[in-house]
Amino acid sequence: MQAAERGACGLRCYKEGGVMLSTTEETLSIFALGGVNEIGKNMYAIQYADDIVVIDCGSKFPDESLLGIDLILPDITYLQENKEKVRALVVTHGHEDHIGGIPYLLKQLNLPVYATRLTLGLIEGKLTEHGLLRETELFLIDSESEVEFESIKLTFFKTNHSIPDCLGIVFHTPEGTVVHTGDFKFDLTPVNDQYPDIHKMAKIGSSGVLALLSESTNAERSGFTPSERLVGEHIEEAFTKARRKVIISTFASNVNRVQQVVDAAIKTNRKLALLGRSMVNVVSIALEQGYLNIPDGMLIEAHEINQMDPEKVAILCTGSQGEPMAALSRLSSGNYRQVDILPEDTIIFAASPIPGNERNVSRIIDNLFLLGAHVIYGTGSSTRMHVSGHAYQEELKLMLTLMKPKYFIPIHGEFRMLHHHSLLAESVGVQKENIFIVSNGDVVDIQNQAARQTRRIPAGNVYVDGLGIGDVGNIILRDRKQLSEDGMIVIVITLSKSEGKIISGPDTISRGFVYARDSDELFKEINQRVITTVNNLQEANIHRWNIVKKEIKQTLGQFLYSHTKRRPMILPIIIEI
Amino acid sequence: MQAAERGACGLRCYKEGGVMLSTTEETLSIFALGGVNEIGKNMYAIQYADDIVVIDCGSKFPDESLLGIDLILPDITYLQENKEKVRALVVTHGHEDHIGGIPYLLKQLNLPVYATRLTLGLIEGKLTEHGLLRETELFLIDSESEVEFESIKLTFFKTNHSIPDCLGIVFHTPEGTVVHTGDFKFDLTPVNDQYPDIHKMAKIGSSGVLALLSESTNAERSGFTPSERLVGEHIEEAFTKARRKVIISTFASNVNRVQQVVDAAIKTNRKLALLGRSMVNVVSIALEQGYLNIPDGMLIEAHEINQMDPEKVAILCTGSQGEPMAALSRLSSGNYRQVDILPEDTIIFAASPIPGNERNVSRIIDNLFLLGAHVIYGTGSSTRMHVSGHAYQEELKLMLTLMKPKYFIPIHGEFRMLHHHSLLAESVGVQKENIFIVSNGDVVDIQNQAARQTRRIPAGNVYVDGLGIGDVGNIILRDRKQLSEDGMIVIVITLSKSEGKIISGPDTISRGFVYARDSDELFKEINQRVITTVNNLQEANIHRWNIVKKEIKQTLGQFLYSHTKRRPMILPIIIEI
Repeated sequence: MQAAERGACGLRCYKEGGVMLSTTEETLSIFALGGVNEIGKNMYAIQYADDIVVIDCGSKFPDESLLGIDLILPDITYLQENKEKVRALVVTHGHEDHIGGIPYLLKQLNLPVYATRLTLGLIEGKLTEHGLLRETELFLIDSESEVEFESIKLTFFKTNHSIPDCLGIVFHTPEGTVVHTGDFKFDLTPVNDQYPDIHKMAKIGSSGVLALLSESTNAERSGFTPSERLVGEHIEEAFTKARRKVIISTFASNVNRVQQVVDAAIKTNRKLALLGRSMVNVVSIALEQGYLNIPDGMLIEAHEINQMDPEKVAILCTGSQGEPMAALSRLSSGNYRQVDILPEDTIIFAASPIPGNERNVSRIIDNLFLLGAHVIYGTGSSTRMHVSGHAYQEELKLMLTLMKPKYFIPIHGEFRMLHHHSLLAESVGVQKENIFIVSNGDVVDIQNQAARQTRRIPAGNVYVDGLGIGDVGNIILRDRKQLSEDGMIVIVITLSKSEGKIISGPDTISRGFVYARDSDELFKEINQRVITTVNNLQEANIHRWNIVKKEIKQTLGQFLYSHTKRRPMILPIIIEI
Repeated sequence: MQAAERGACGLRCYKEGGVMLSTTEETLSIFALGGVNEIGKNMYAIQYADDIVVIDCGSKFPDESLLGIDLILPDITYLQENKEKVRALVVTHGHEDHIGGIPYLLKQLNLPVYATRLTLGLIEGKLTEHGLLRETELFLIDSESEVEFESIKLTFFKTNHSIPDCLGIVFHTPEGTVVHTGDFKFDLTPVNDQYPDIHKMAKIGSSGVLALLSESTNAERSGFTPSERLVGEHIEEAFTKARRKVIISTFASNVNRVQQVVDAAIKTNRKLALLGRSMVNVVSIALEQGYLNIPDGMLIEAHEINQMDPEKVAILCTGSQGEPMAALSRLSSGNYRQVDILPEDTIIFAASPIPGNERNVSRIIDNLFLLGAHVIYGTGSSTRMHVSGHAYQEELKLMLTLMKPKYFIPIHGEFRMLHHHSLLAESVGVQKENIFIVSNGDVVDIQNQAARQTRRIPAGNVYVDGLGIGDVGNIILRDRKQLSEDGMIVIVITLSKSEGKIISGPDTISRGFVYARDSDELFKEINQRVITTVNNLQEANIHRWNIVKKEIKQTLGQFLYSHTKRRPMILPIIIEI
């Protein structure tokens, strides 16, 4: 890792403040590549003249409708087409929806990466997995760093979020200043002194901000997010009340919450065991880099748990989202070697289920109650074990007020969130016509202080399935959907080349359609219909295979639907010998 | 439909009150057939001596993991095996999770059905669809009815819920009284005078209740559900503020909420159009039977909407759960003939998304905002457009207090809800050892006032897929899952019977695996490997087809996984000529 001292490479004339120095032919462009009109998969880019700087490169997990897809990445066609201009990737923080796509991006474009210590640590892990660590230039920055390219200078400011070491980014260009908030909240009583740098933000705003890109996740929620400290108080209370061992699950990356769990264990005189690969991994990175403070002798191994008094033990584990292979799920189903959940144990979910995960989480809670455990979950105010890491409406207004942007682009959120965020911007004085609600692929161009949104670049979802990136498209997904709903049936017949008569078959194989053993009659009828269809076509002197296949599909399709109300995929195979 | 006057068929000695008349050899049994440890698909049964009475027969929709399944039904094996004892199906109310399985049950067991007017109306619709109406005996009851069988007498009490005409059921038997609450809440200021009959409940409790079965849906929620009237006030407020047309979506079966929509339209001088098949259907049943009061000339047709001043129109439609084919979804995507959503229109979601439907609902809200509409959704207290139909903790305690049961069986809910409900029962004085948390298939037997839970009957999920009921099981679902994730590949080779040599093929077809046009090389390699495998086996003089197929599967499986990290289903087909 190298320190960020690339600068001084001949910056032309970026400026502080919104005052234009001179009219110019150059355009300042803001690209939404991922993360608007969706949650997850964030990626934006800023271009001025021949300099493009990329912000974040996240991935997201598919919903159930994308059958077999492992991961969704942003489309980087525009960056590939302009690769000689792309100067760097700057990363706001270390969450998957901001760093998950980095290895895939770097395989295509070997960019230098700029990020803070913890973020770089997490990125390094990914690069190692993908065998990219050696060939990647990593630059360590902090909120005081300055990074200069030909026509763009980057400065930074500290923000608060549910992972330490987050940055907002300021792009200084000859056209004016663009601010990208990253993910943020305003926690004024943060854990581990991770204060948001409000004074610096105010100074940036005072100097003039041409355009603000601010995150919109919680733009529908009124008020102000509670402080992370509140969670700490509730955790400590629960640890104090617990009569036997405590098992607490949260996001591994929420290092400040992990610290609060450590603190609660210390105060209640419990040793702490870490379960789950990502928990062990993140804690070790965070410890190494000074983001966590854990006294010597505090951590114990899983195999030591059963040897200790239950009231002297706490377990911090992964799986708060109900992930079936994570530690908590395995604990709840009795499948974790060395550790059992026993009656009167206390289990704490220190995280809310992300939409889509509710069912898996519920299943685990049910299992835990069945084991006789005391389970604390939900966000009822009395036992609140989770607060959001994203700014609520009053915080979004605070950011808008501090930055006083001329132009505003709400980012990171679905359309209704962007819409609500735009209303908030109007309410604090941004001109309605200066607000751009963009979609991925949209570009906002600013020239001579006038912004317009007229052009688009390629954008969308690139699907990862196994080793394939982008090869699975609509046709494959449509086939998978049909296969998933009603299965399929393969019909093989062998015809003699000379006479066109059936000399073998039909042989029929079905999967996922009906239970073959109970369907003798049905399969007899299928075969009979295939034979009749083929013979009829032969008699009519029609020999073209595609017509024969089409006829078989049609005849069988109708027959099967009327008999089963199912529409399996029908695959006729004709062998000619 | 016939009036409920079957009684007087020689009841032996049921009794009021919990005092035992004499020791007896007979057992009072309570069966959980569906709806405990799950939400939806409710079905219970009470047996005394040779009389079995079934309560409700619901269906539920599958989650995404049950690929291709249309509906889930309860297992009725026990009822079929004891069909000479099953006297009747009594239905508490007309929601799908209580009536959806009735046609399937009646096809197996032609039982008389007892229900209140609206409930019967909804059941009749289902029976008509399934061609069962003529052969089914339907008995109309109300809360004052008494229904007598040999050894069980049924009386009823009115409850409140999100559909009118709900009943709790009291089973009077020689062993004692069992109460089944159905779904309920206590709305003390209900719409349309649907008051819960608290005095009657108190009287039932005073007479002695041996066992109470009470619903548990909201057992995790503290407090008391707000009254439906609150929703009415907010609807009226929104109608008053709306500058152009108002579109409001709710559950068609929530007739009282429909009434409040009608009332708001009247007060704000708007005509009302109904969109969506189930809305039109339920409103017509409810009107016919006097549950709705709509002035003449109030309702307009869809095609009249565009001819009227927008501020004089309201639309009540289906689709509040984001169902893709329902009216609201089609309106939001501009696919509803005759009706357009225009800027400044107001759209109200008067329903909360049921878990699992959040994504579909969000997509519609996004579309509506894109159209420039004003959208009211969510359950924030200031614009609350929905209240739950299920009792919160204080109401559950009220029911327990009124009934004062000796034994308590929490029903209708997932395990954690049953667990919380049992804690509530303890808190109001039910003995812990007298509470039975059961699973579907469990039986609670009571003899001489002593209850035990020792035996089980068949129970579980029966899947409906098209016309098939119960034929799709784990094997088919496992195949569908594999097909859905990585697709499949069929390999056909023709061997000569005499020499065992390949005379045609391999021919390869894949679906849902890789995009065939871009995979020439891969398919060449596949074919080469198949040929090598077959030849090797021939040389080793191994001709058994299943061994050849197994070898092909194994070789190709490894090859494809190492090349694609995908595991398609591999189907080798060998033709011998």
